[in-house]
Amino acid sequence: MSKYANAALLVIDVQKAIDAPYHASLGPRNNPDAEGKIALLLAHWRKYGRRIVHVRHDSTFPDRPGQSGYEFKPQVAPLDGEIIVAKNTNSAFVGTELEKRLQAWEIQSLVVTGVSTNNSVEATVRMAGNLGFDTYLVEDACFTFAKRDFRRVLRTADEVHAMSLANLDGEYCSIVGTADVLSR
Amino acid sequence: MSKYANAALLVIDVQKAIDAPYHASLGPRNNPDAEGKIALLLAHWRKYGRRIVHVRHDSTFPDRPGQSGYEFKPQVAPLDGEIIVAKNTNSAFVGTELEKRLQAWEIQSLVVTGVSTNNSVEATVRMAGNLGFDTYLVEDACFTFAKRDFRRVLRTADEVHAMSLANLDGEYCSIVGTADVLSR
Repeated sequence: MSKYANAALLVIDVQKAIDAPYHASLGPRNNPDAEGKIALLLAHWRKYGRRIVHVRHDSTFPDRPGQSGYEFKPQVAPLDGEIIVAKNTNSAFVGTELEKRLQAWEIQSLVVTGVSTNNSVEATVRMAGNLGFDTYLVEDACFTFAKRDFRRVLRTADEVHAMSLANLDGEYCSIVGTADVLSR
Repeated sequence: MSKYANAALLVIDVQKAIDAPYHASLGPRNNPDAEGKIALLLAHWRKYGRRIVHVRHDSTFPDRPGQSGYEFKPQVAPLDGEIIVAKNTNSAFVGTELEKRLQAWEIQSLVVTGVSTNNSVEATVRMAGNLGFDTYLVEDACFTFAKRDFRRVLRTADEVHAMSLANLDGEYCSIVGTADVLSR
């Protein structure tokens, strides 16, 4: 049996607002096909009838309800009946029913995708691992943006992404790729 | 009144085991005087009778009880009667009574120090911010080690530290320095 057979797929904050130009003011995002990879994972999860959770960030302009950036990006939008967990902070586990819902489903494994790698994805993955979930982060199904570090050194999106993954791998989760997940 | 007057000082995982050579196998730690800065902050908190929480990592070899690395480093050891919160994972908020204790004390602000910046300190600060605490991370009172990122690029301890701080600053906490905290 696939190690992902009883895993829930989390899609974090893939809303239209992530394309707002200010996110990329220091350089382009990485993994330009992340949405395509997430779409493949969603199709795979739907085909096998596995659990899916769409996580939506509700509070910060321009992601809030009524703003144009609030909607999910169309490639990864929920189907009717799929679960949406709304959050107001970075971690999908804080102030939400996510942990209780996963427990009710008897889910012990999570496959995590979305944005941004070093922010809401990382905050959620750190908590998932610490809460005891077997957590898999799909590194080509998430992305981030260029950023200056605290010494003002400009890091490309892929450098920011690679440091975040290194902090998480083996400590809070296992880093995997879409092709590996789809093969199981 | 100082903005830190009702803040609890958290000292995270400053145990002898952090000096084990394997931590520094890719290069030396940064902030070699972090323990000295924490000692100054502890003295300041004790002088003003503010709340202190010593966080101790209990599970992982060689930090576990009965191992020589388990003890607090002497410069930052608790005094009799000071609170110790034992944890088994990275975040001091997972599987512990920390949040309830802070609520019982009516503490809304945290000043965070300890090791390592990008691991237990970062996991704790991300949760602290998401849980709604006004959180201040003292950047010269924490430290970390060199690490390869996920693309195998070797980053110095200060590079790892600086990327962690940039991910946290303004999103989960405010980054401050020991001198600033002591002046208030």
